[in-house]
Amino acid sequence: MKKLTLTAMAISLSISLFAQEKADQPTLQKIRQEGLENSKIMDIAFQITDVAGPRLSNSPGLKRAQDWAVQQFTSWGLKNVHLEAWGEFGRGWQIDKYYAATTLPYYHAIIGAPKAWTPSTKGPIKSEVILIKADTITDLAPYKGKLAGKIVLFDQVTLQPLAPSYKPDVVRYSDSTLNKMAEAEIQPQGQRSPRAGAANNMMAQMMKMRATRAAMASFMKDEQVGMILSYARGSYGTFFTSNGAPYALNATPVSPELEISAEDYLHILRLLRAGQKVEMEADIRTSFYDQDPQGYNVIAEIPGTDRKLKEEVVMIGGHYDSWHSATGATDNAAGAAVMMEAMRILKTIDFKPKRTIRIALWSSEEQGLFGSRGYVAKHFGDPKTMVLTKDQKKISAYYNLDNGTGAIRGIYAQGNTAAAPIFKEWLSPFQDLGATTVTLSNTGGTDHLAFDALGIPGFQFIQDPMDYNTRTHHSNQDTFDRLAEEDLKRAATIVATFVAHTAERKDQIPRKELPKAPEAPKK
Amino acid sequence: MKKLTLTAMAISLSISLFAQEKADQPTLQKIRQEGLENSKIMDIAFQITDVAGPRLSNSPGLKRAQDWAVQQFTSWGLKNVHLEAWGEFGRGWQIDKYYAATTLPYYHAIIGAPKAWTPSTKGPIKSEVILIKADTITDLAPYKGKLAGKIVLFDQVTLQPLAPSYKPDVVRYSDSTLNKMAEAEIQPQGQRSPRAGAANNMMAQMMKMRATRAAMASFMKDEQVGMILSYARGSYGTFFTSNGAPYALNATPVSPELEISAEDYLHILRLLRAGQKVEMEADIRTSFYDQDPQGYNVIAEIPGTDRKLKEEVVMIGGHYDSWHSATGATDNAAGAAVMMEAMRILKTIDFKPKRTIRIALWSSEEQGLFGSRGYVAKHFGDPKTMVLTKDQKKISAYYNLDNGTGAIRGIYAQGNTAAAPIFKEWLSPFQDLGATTVTLSNTGGTDHLAFDALGIPGFQFIQDPMDYNTRTHHSNQDTFDRLAEEDLKRAATIVATFVAHTAERKDQIPRKELPKAPEAPKK
Repeated sequence: MKKLTLTAMAISLSISLFAQEKADQPTLQKIRQEGLENSKIMDIAFQITDVAGPRLSNSPGLKRAQDWAVQQFTSWGLKNVHLEAWGEFGRGWQIDKYYAATTLPYYHAIIGAPKAWTPSTKGPIKSEVILIKADTITDLAPYKGKLAGKIVLFDQVTLQPLAPSYKPDVVRYSDSTLNKMAEAEIQPQGQRSPRAGAANNMMAQMMKMRATRAAMASFMKDEQVGMILSYARGSYGTFFTSNGAPYALNATPVSPELEISAEDYLHILRLLRAGQKVEMEADIRTSFYDQDPQGYNVIAEIPGTDRKLKEEVVMIGGHYDSWHSATGATDNAAGAAVMMEAMRILKTIDFKPKRTIRIALWSSEEQGLFGSRGYVAKHFGDPKTMVLTKDQKKISAYYNLDNGTGAIRGIYAQGNTAAAPIFKEWLSPFQDLGATTVTLSNTGGTDHLAFDALGIPGFQFIQDPMDYNTRTHHSNQDTFDRLAEEDLKRAATIVATFVAHTAERKDQIPRKELPKAPEAPKK
Repeated sequence: MKKLTLTAMAISLSISLFAQEKADQPTLQKIRQEGLENSKIMDIAFQITDVAGPRLSNSPGLKRAQDWAVQQFTSWGLKNVHLEAWGEFGRGWQIDKYYAATTLPYYHAIIGAPKAWTPSTKGPIKSEVILIKADTITDLAPYKGKLAGKIVLFDQVTLQPLAPSYKPDVVRYSDSTLNKMAEAEIQPQGQRSPRAGAANNMMAQMMKMRATRAAMASFMKDEQVGMILSYARGSYGTFFTSNGAPYALNATPVSPELEISAEDYLHILRLLRAGQKVEMEADIRTSFYDQDPQGYNVIAEIPGTDRKLKEEVVMIGGHYDSWHSATGATDNAAGAAVMMEAMRILKTIDFKPKRTIRIALWSSEEQGLFGSRGYVAKHFGDPKTMVLTKDQKKISAYYNLDNGTGAIRGIYAQGNTAAAPIFKEWLSPFQDLGATTVTLSNTGGTDHLAFDALGIPGFQFIQDPMDYNTRTHHSNQDTFDRLAEEDLKRAATIVATFVAHTAERKDQIPRKELPKAPEAPKK
């Protein structure tokens, strides 16, 4: 298969092609001025993070943030503003009290959080911490009848001491990294990883581990254990949350479970391994919300004005939900705020787009891109069968932002060789902001995939990593403090121009070949 | 004044001088083997940190650690093992419970700790957080009568948002930095900073600020404020403690005061500034220990065996006390453990020193080098009058370790030009450990200064900074996890050889000119 690089393509496409690729100059000028000089990005981000709080799927925090967005969109004069159900998610959940400390060998307050969707302790509890050495369910037999009300910690023999990090927490992409991205070859579509065998093997192991874990969880629940302590990745007071307990309305009940900072976990583990008695007290209260199991996205529009083209749509979005141990500033209040600010900019400069512009703030991205997948399933078709709706053809492109607070440095063309040179042209005015890279590479893990899976051009921007991977992504330290104002301003400005270009362009954004259905269409 | 560099000196001193500078080769060999291959350093550090806990001056944690050290020294067969009072310190203090969280606009558990020596809250408290805008005591007038039982936070207008750090948290010294240290010129003794005027000015400002603060603290106490929130430097869940409240037996009572992480403080501050209501709950319990206000050092010896020289002493030490929000692993369990391990090594290899070797684990270093200063005042003389005891002449040298967990890279000769080449020679076998740098520079801030002030050669080793300045020094993250095993092993080995050399050397370590008395001797 012939491989193309972007540079080769860019040269092969003549300038004449680009005449139709631009929104008009005065519009671009106004976007830039409003975005860089009258930005409201930090006010928006403040509301989503500090004011609304953690935004776990279907939690009161997410509801607060959604209600605020509806009110905000309405006050800006957007149309068709509404919460739109995408399907059944399950129960909401939030923390009402977190308190945990060792009381022996001495008092020490513990940094941590209950795992999402785990229940309260039976009021304030106090117990010796029991070290459990068990890799399999049969290893648990000796503990039977001894754990009721007890706080337990598993001796993870493979757990390594924390290693010092000689690298900075916060990084930006270097020119050379960006150049490599720009030169990346297109990944042939449908090509599977060459190590599919290894992946299957890993998957089998994971399934086995998951089964063991489920059996152990069930044992713990039956034994009426007081609380389980879990190791949370991270260091220096930062900890990362992992997947919580099941959130389905009919989920099997689990034990109270705390994720605690690596330092606190290792502290207790070292003491227990040395035969020291460790005692803890804890008081965890969590609430479940079962009343409305539907999940919702926030939708709003700037209606198109062209007689023909207004039926077509440019979509932008980012997920609005977060994990529970912080206010999800970089994951993904940042992306949501940038997209909201892009809408505000376009509305404020009184842009009258040919095509309709629609923003979607997704929910339940963290549990599996549910909000965006539910939305596209409802509106555009079924990715399993590739039976598509009429509306699938009307979406010119979807642009997503969900890689933290870092400056936009360009865009992932997601293997769309025809779109790439168009984006290259659109980014050319942003040389001063360092945002000119177009890569054919795919990027995954977020909501543009839901569109891509249905053959709708879906893109995610390239962003400087900052401290996303080292400190903030799913951590207790994903707070407003992490937001880089200048980067976010610029991001909103760039996104707004992409939206304007896409809305004004004569043709829709070119599409890749339609993905093949993994399942045959149902009759 | 002629300035000397160490390189120039090293060249000018002929090799003949060094014949007497060495302990015998088999002893050095045994030290190296025991120190690097049979190390007990991590066991020792584990006891001081994880098992004993935080070791604030006169706290039960320090007492536990001291009792353990006495028992450990005794079990190793050291002599003259005892706790020795250095003078009156004041009250002990410890945390018995720490719980704080916002409850409005939503629930969020706060990372923090009570300031050392602050009192308990009046049981569990719950209150709106009141934003106080006041730079002077008169600015407080409008708050009179409104703060009883309330949680308050000062609007520090100069407080900056947290800035991203593009530098690594953990660093080691580069060769070029070490070379620069080695080339440092001697700082002429008694020379004051050229900016004494500026310093006086700063001091005056500080005194004024301190007076304002005291007046404000008194206002808060009189108003029976429920709790004061203080901004703690740091980021990502790490916070640094600062000086606490007075610890004297007759200290003026203060209000309960929490230091909370920068993220949590700024979170509340942003909300309050935006006019959002913030409510908090807290339950702080602290205990004071007034029974024995004396401060103690732990002392132990390996007695000298030479008929004449055994009256002379080589001293090593490090402070044993810590701050309260962690287990003080790098400040200074590391240094204390290294010094203890050095004693263990020397005892284990059955070293029979000519001079007596004495270890001192100081207390109350954190409040002003009180343990070491009290000790030298009792044994060696008064630095204010420079009236000296007979014993002052008997201490050949004092070696200190208190700059974290980092590898020893050399030693600060503290302006002692005659000692420097001796140390250079002693370090020459440690090229493989990267520990060969001798600098004439002074280093301050720790217990060797107490000796230096009385004309006794007192030295501190050069150590790789690691994360001492960025993450651990006085922070809630100064835990066992931060200890670098290999570095500590090597440090103990190097220190043990310094002790052996000093114990065996024909002459004492050469002395600098005696400091001049800042006050005339009392009659």
